[in-house]
Amino acid sequence: MIGYAFMGRAHSQAWRTVAAAFDVPQVARRVIVGRDESAVAEAARRLDWEEHSTDWRAVIDREDVDVVDICTPGFLHAEIAIAALEAGKHVLCEKPLANDAAEAEAMVAAADAAQRRGQIAALGFTYRRVPALALAKRYVQEGKLGTVRQAKAAYLQDWLVDEEAPMSWRLRQETAGSGALGDIASHAIDQVQHLTGQSVTAVRGRLATIVPERPGQDGPEAVTVDDAAWATLELDGGALASVEVSRMATGAKNRLTVELFGTRGALRFDLENPNELWFLDATRPVAEQGFTRVLVTEPEHPYLEAWWPQGHVLGWENAFSNQARDLLVAIRDRETTDAPGYSPDFADGLALQRVLDAIIASDAADGATVAVTDHLHR
Amino acid sequence: MIGYAFMGRAHSQAWRTVAAAFDVPQVARRVIVGRDESAVAEAARRLDWEEHSTDWRAVIDREDVDVVDICTPGFLHAEIAIAALEAGKHVLCEKPLANDAAEAEAMVAAADAAQRRGQIAALGFTYRRVPALALAKRYVQEGKLGTVRQAKAAYLQDWLVDEEAPMSWRLRQETAGSGALGDIASHAIDQVQHLTGQSVTAVRGRLATIVPERPGQDGPEAVTVDDAAWATLELDGGALASVEVSRMATGAKNRLTVELFGTRGALRFDLENPNELWFLDATRPVAEQGFTRVLVTEPEHPYLEAWWPQGHVLGWENAFSNQARDLLVAIRDRETTDAPGYSPDFADGLALQRVLDAIIASDAADGATVAVTDHLHR
Amino acid sequence: MIGYAFMGRAHSQAWRTVAAAFDVPQVARRVIVGRDESAVAEAARRLDWEEHSTDWRAVIDREDVDVVDICTPGFLHAEIAIAALEAGKHVLCEKPLANDAAEAEAMVAAADAAQRRGQIAALGFTYRRVPALALAKRYVQEGKLGTVRQAKAAYLQDWLVDEEAPMSWRLRQETAGSGALGDIASHAIDQVQHLTGQSVTAVRGRLATIVPERPGQDGPEAVTVDDAAWATLELDGGALASVEVSRMATGAKNRLTVELFGTRGALRFDLENPNELWFLDATRPVAEQGFTRVLVTEPEHPYLEAWWPQGHVLGWENAFSNQARDLLVAIRDRETTDAPGYSPDFADGLALQRVLDAIIASDAADGATVAVTDHLHR
Amino acid sequence: MIGYAFMGRAHSQAWRTVAAAFDVPQVARRVIVGRDESAVAEAARRLDWEEHSTDWRAVIDREDVDVVDICTPGFLHAEIAIAALEAGKHVLCEKPLANDAAEAEAMVAAADAAQRRGQIAALGFTYRRVPALALAKRYVQEGKLGTVRQAKAAYLQDWLVDEEAPMSWRLRQETAGSGALGDIASHAIDQVQHLTGQSVTAVRGRLATIVPERPGQDGPEAVTVDDAAWATLELDGGALASVEVSRMATGAKNRLTVELFGTRGALRFDLENPNELWFLDATRPVAEQGFTRVLVTEPEHPYLEAWWPQGHVLGWENAFSNQARDLLVAIRDRETTDAPGYSPDFADGLALQRVLDAIIASDAADGATVAVTDHLHR
Repeated sequence: MIGYAFMGRAHSQAWRTVAAAFDVPQVARRVIVGRDESAVAEAARRLDWEEHSTDWRAVIDREDVDVVDICTPGFLHAEIAIAALEAGKHVLCEKPLANDAAEAEAMVAAADAAQRRGQIAALGFTYRRVPALALAKRYVQEGKLGTVRQAKAAYLQDWLVDEEAPMSWRLRQETAGSGALGDIASHAIDQVQHLTGQSVTAVRGRLATIVPERPGQDGPEAVTVDDAAWATLELDGGALASVEVSRMATGAKNRLTVELFGTRGALRFDLENPNELWFLDATRPVAEQGFTRVLVTEPEHPYLEAWWPQGHVLGWENAFSNQARDLLVAIRDRETTDAPGYSPDFADGLALQRVLDAIIASDAADGATVAVTDHLHR
Repeated sequence: MIGYAFMGRAHSQAWRTVAAAFDVPQVARRVIVGRDESAVAEAARRLDWEEHSTDWRAVIDREDVDVVDICTPGFLHAEIAIAALEAGKHVLCEKPLANDAAEAEAMVAAADAAQRRGQIAALGFTYRRVPALALAKRYVQEGKLGTVRQAKAAYLQDWLVDEEAPMSWRLRQETAGSGALGDIASHAIDQVQHLTGQSVTAVRGRLATIVPERPGQDGPEAVTVDDAAWATLELDGGALASVEVSRMATGAKNRLTVELFGTRGALRFDLENPNELWFLDATRPVAEQGFTRVLVTEPEHPYLEAWWPQGHVLGWENAFSNQARDLLVAIRDRETTDAPGYSPDFADGLALQRVLDAIIASDAADGATVAVTDHLHR
Repeated sequence: MIGYAFMGRAHSQAWRTVAAAFDVPQVARRVIVGRDESAVAEAARRLDWEEHSTDWRAVIDREDVDVVDICTPGFLHAEIAIAALEAGKHVLCEKPLANDAAEAEAMVAAADAAQRRGQIAALGFTYRRVPALALAKRYVQEGKLGTVRQAKAAYLQDWLVDEEAPMSWRLRQETAGSGALGDIASHAIDQVQHLTGQSVTAVRGRLATIVPERPGQDGPEAVTVDDAAWATLELDGGALASVEVSRMATGAKNRLTVELFGTRGALRFDLENPNELWFLDATRPVAEQGFTRVLVTEPEHPYLEAWWPQGHVLGWENAFSNQARDLLVAIRDRETTDAPGYSPDFADGLALQRVLDAIIASDAADGATVAVTDHLHR
Repeated sequence: MIGYAFMGRAHSQAWRTVAAAFDVPQVARRVIVGRDESAVAEAARRLDWEEHSTDWRAVIDREDVDVVDICTPGFLHAEIAIAALEAGKHVLCEKPLANDAAEAEAMVAAADAAQRRGQIAALGFTYRRVPALALAKRYVQEGKLGTVRQAKAAYLQDWLVDEEAPMSWRLRQETAGSGALGDIASHAIDQVQHLTGQSVTAVRGRLATIVPERPGQDGPEAVTVDDAAWATLELDGGALASVEVSRMATGAKNRLTVELFGTRGALRFDLENPNELWFLDATRPVAEQGFTRVLVTEPEHPYLEAWWPQGHVLGWENAFSNQARDLLVAIRDRETTDAPGYSPDFADGLALQRVLDAIIASDAADGATVAVTDHLHR
C-alpha cells in the first residue's frame, strides 16, 4: 500500500477485516509506503503492516507483493499505477483516477495491456459497495424501476462554510485539478451512471467559487477551484439527470443523495443514513403506495451475509471490506476463468473524467451543451 | 351546539365546511348555547351561527333543531345528552362520554331508547376519522396484518412540564374525573380497540402524579389526578397492548402514536404527522421489506375524494368535517334503511369508561390484574 | 369570486373560515361567477355563496362588491383583473399573474394606478402564508442564517408518469404558456426570492419534455410544454440557487422543497410535511449541532395563535385562510394608514414572470446566461 | 478469548482494530478457545488468532495471557470468569453476567477480590460505547436535561413472528434463564439506569409468551420463557420509567429505543439509526424548540476523534472497538493510578440481574410492586 493518511487507514482496516467477514484468503499486509520515514513507521505499527518503506519503486518490484493499493493524492496516481501494472501487479487505485484526461488515458493504456496479461486494474469508487447502493443497483437490474427517466443527485458538505478556513492544496487548481467537482461530484455522477446503467453523453455545467479568497501563509490567497457546481446530464438511455455539489452547504456533513425516477418505481438514498434504501413500487395499488424504508441489514441483501445479524447496521468503513472482497474474488476468478474482471476499472475512471471535463468546458462556454464523447478532440 | 370553547370552534368549522367537501345537505347552524351571554354572542358572530342562547333546555326543545352537538366539559354531558335524546334529537357528544360509569350507564340507557326511535347518539372520538387511521382500520379489516398480536400506543404531551404551571379544573379529581388517563389514554385505548377490532378484557395499570403540588389561587394546592399513566391490556382476540400517557413528556406536543404488530404485517401512526401511515407487509420478499410511508392524500384513501388533489395534506380540523359527514349520512340512512347507525356510540363510550375504571382499580390494587367486565360489580 | 374549480373551492373555504380564526370582520360571500349556469349554481349552493352569476362584468360593477377574487385559468387573469381594478375593487388574483410578460405589464400598470387610489392588488402565492414558511422568513430576517449563500429548491410531482395520461390544456403552449416551469417552478422561485429577500438577476435554464406525445382526442398529439425543468439562479445579494421541477418524479406527490444555506445557519422545508421547519444553528457548539425539527404549531409561530392548541397541525387549506386574513388586514390598514399594502402584489408577479421568461430564453440559447433585467428588451 | 460465535466474531474485530483507531498498544491475539477442535481452528484462521485451544482452563493459566474475554453462552460465564479472575487475569465478560442471581453474586465476590489486586472485571454492555449513547450520557451529566422525570425504553425485534420458527436453547428456561427479558430488556434497563444515573428501586412487571408452543425435534414443544415483557420502574432519583420488549414486533429488526424527559430537555435514540441522537433543549425560545438530530460523527463527540471525518458514520461493530479501548485504558490506569476502574463491572451486572428478577417476581405476584433491594432476601 502506498499512502497512509485517511484512505490508507480505511484500506488497512479493510485488509485486516476482509478474511474474517468473507470466505477469502487472509491477506498478508506486506509493506506500507510513505515519504516520511518516521511517520510511515508509526503507521505500519498502528495499522499492523509487516514492514514499511519510503521507496515505492522498490516495493512494487518485490516478488512477495501481488497487489499494489494506491492511496496517495491523485496527482501521483498515474506514475505509480503504470509502474505497478508494468511490474505485473494487480492494482487498486483510489479515485479520482487522475487529475486530467491525458494522465487517465495513459493509465487506461497500461491497464488494457495488464488486463490482457490477467491483471486487475481496479478503481476505488467504494460507494458502489455500500450495501444499500448495491441493492439499488440490483433493483434497477431486476426492472423494479422500469425505465429510469430522471435522476437527481447531490453531494453536499459544509467544511468550507467558514470564510476563515485556510487555503490548502485542495483549493488550488494546480494540485487538485478541480474542487467540489472532482472530489464529490465524481461520486454523484458515478452513482448516476452505475445505477441507471446509462452513460452520460452530453452535459451543461456551472461552477462557482463562492468564497474567492482565503487566508494563505502569506496573506489572502485566491481560491482557484470551484466550491460548488451544478450540472444537467443527458444519458444514452434517454434519462436526464441533475447533479449539485457544494462544500458550503451549512449543516450537510457527508450528504450524498441519489434519487431515481422510473416508469415503474423510484429510489432514494442518503449517505448520512447509509443503511437505508427507500423504494417506491409504482405498480402497487395506489392506496398502498409510498416509499418503503428498507433497512439493508438482512442476509438477503448484498454483502450482508458476511456481517452481523439483521438490524445490526454497518458503518462507512465496511464498504472498503466489501471492496476488498470483490477485488480478491476478481483476482481469483481472473486467473482461472473468463470472468469479466473488476468494475469500476481504469476505463470507467477515464470515462468519468471526460464527463467532469465536459462540465468544466460547458461552464467555460457560458453553459452551452458539451458532448462527452467529442469534446476531448477539439 | 352547546359550548363554544376549543371544541365548539372545531365543531363549528366542521358544520360550516361539511357540505362544501361532501355530498350532504347544507347544515343550518341554528343556535349556539353558552352560559355567558356576551361571550356566546361573540362566539355566534365569529363562528357564524344564526342565533345564540344561554338556555340549553329551551334550545333542545325547538322544532327547528334536529341535532344537538354537545361540546361542554364532561361533567355536563349526561344531563344535556339525556334531555336532548328524550326531546327526540340526534346527539353528538364530545368525549369523554361522562366522568364516571354511573353517568355513562344512564346515558347509554337513554341512547338505547332513542336509537329504537331512530335517533343517533354519537360519541366524538374524532380521531377515528383521521384518514390515516381510517386507512389503518381498512388495512386491518382487509387482513393485511393477519392476526394482531401486540399493540403499543402512547399519547404524550408536555404542557405540565413546568412545575409552576398553575392549578386548573383539569388537575382536580372532582371536576376532571381523572387526569391524563381520561383525557388522552382514552384516545389511545379507543384506537387500540377500534383498529384491532378487539375489546379489552383485563388490565394492569399504574398512575402517577409526578408533580404533586402546583400554584393555586391561595398558595400551593394538591394535584389530585394523574399526570402520567401506564397500562397493559388483554384483548379478547388474544392481543396484548401497552398504553403510556403523560403530560410531562418534554418536547411531545400532541404525540398520539399507535403501533400494531400482526402475523402478516405491522402499522405505525403518529398524530404529529397525521397524513402519514406507515405499513409493513411481512409477506413481501425479505429483501424488499420495510415500513412504507403512505402519504394519505389520494382519492383512493378514506374521505380524501372530498378534499384536495394528491399531496395536499389535511389538518387536524378536517377530521371533524369527516365526522360531521359520517353523522349526517348515518342520520339519513337511519331514517330510510336498516343501517347500523353511527360508531362510536354511547355504548362504546361506556365500554371505554369501564376500561379506564379498571386501570384505576388496578393501580389502587398495587397493579393487580382487573377484569373489565366484572370490576364494576364489586 | 370568479371561478369555482379547485382554487375556487379553496378560496371559498378561506372566506368562510377567516373570521372564525382571526379577528377580522365576517366576509359576505356575495356572488360566485362561472360560465356554466347550472354548474355555478351548484357551486354557489355547496360553497355557500349568496348568489351566482355567469356575467363577471356585471358583478365587478356591483356596489355591494368590495373585493374581486380571481380563480380562473391564467389566460383570463389580465382582462378580469384590469377591469376589476378600474371598477375600483380590491383584487386578489391567483398565480400565475398572467401567461406572458406583456399581459403582466398591463396588469401592473392597472395595479399601480389602483394602488394610488387606495386599492389592493394582491397575488395568490399562498405558500408564503404556510406558517412554517412564514417562520422561515422570520428566521432569515432575524439574521439566524447570516448571509444566505446558496439555495436549493425543487418542486416534484408525478401525475404525468403514465405515458397514457391524456393531453389537456395544461400540456399545450397556447393555453398554458409553459408546463412545469410556470406551474410549479414559479412557486419554488418565489420562495427562493421571498425567503432570501434577494432578487434573481440572471439565470441559466434547461427545459425538457420527457414524454413528447400523448393520447389526444384524435390520436397522438404533441406535448408542447416542458414536463421538467432545471435552472441556476444568480441573486442580487450574492446567493446562487438551483431549481428543479418535474411532473415525472415517480412517487413525489406535492414535494415543494426549499433549502437555504447561510453563513450562520441553514433551513429545510418540504410541503409534504408542511407543519415542520428544519433549522440548523451553526453558531451552536459543534457537539450539539444538527437540524432541529420545529413543529410549527405554537402560539408563538406565525398565524398559529388563531388556530388550535400546540401539536394540532394545520392542513394545506389553512394557508388560504391566512392569506384572506392578511388581505383583509391590508385593506383595513390601507384605508387608514400609510401601510405598505399587500405582498406579493402584481409587480412581484411580473418580476417572477421575467425570471421564468429568462429561463425559457436561456434554454433556447443552449443554456447561455440570461440577465433577468434586460432580456425583455431584446 | 473463550467462544467464537457471533460475539466472538465481534470481539475479534475489536481486538484487531482497536490499536489502529486509538492510541493504545497492539493487542496480541494469543489464543481462541472453543469446544469443537476443527471449528475453533477454522475460527482462529479466519479471525486471525495466533493459536486455538479446546481447554479454557489451560489457557487462563498461561503467563502470556493478560486478559480473558468471555464470549460463551451465559450459563458458562460464572465458572470461567471466577477461574480467570482467580488466575490473576483481567476479565471482560459478555452480558448477561449470569443466568441467575446466585451465580452473579459469586462472580461479584470473585471480582471484588480481584479488583483489590488491581485486576479489571468488566461487563460487556457494549451499547454504552455507542457514541450517540455516550453523548446522551454526557448531555445528562452536563445538566442539559435538568432532572429526568420520565423515561421510556423499548427493545423490539421480530425474529419469532413466525409460529413455525423452531425451538432452541433460547426458548427454554433451563438454558436461557429468561427470554426477551434477560436478552434485550437487560439492555433497555441498563441504558435507563446508566443514562439517568439513577438506580431502579422497585418494579411492576408483566411477562407473556405469545406463541406458547413451537416445533421441536420430536414434535411440538412448550416455550418456557417470555417472548414479550413490560415493566414500570421506580428510580432512586424520582424518575419513573417504562420498558417494553418483544421478539414478536413485526418489522422491528433491532429497535432499541430510549427516550428521556427532563425538566430542561429531552433525548431520543434508536439503535436502528445509531449515529443519530435527538435532543430537545426546552430552555430555548418556544418558537425555535424542537428535537435536533445530532449526527454523532464529529471529532467533538465521544470516541469519534479516533475514527473517520465528519459525516462518515460508524456501524454496530465500532462500539466493540470503543469498548476494547476503554478496557485497555482502564487496565493501564488501574496499574498506575487510583483510577476508578471500568464501568459497567460485575456489580453492575448483579444489580441489573436483581431488577430482572424483581420483574419476574412481580409478574408472578400478579403485577404487584416488588422492591429491588429486598426481594432477594425473602
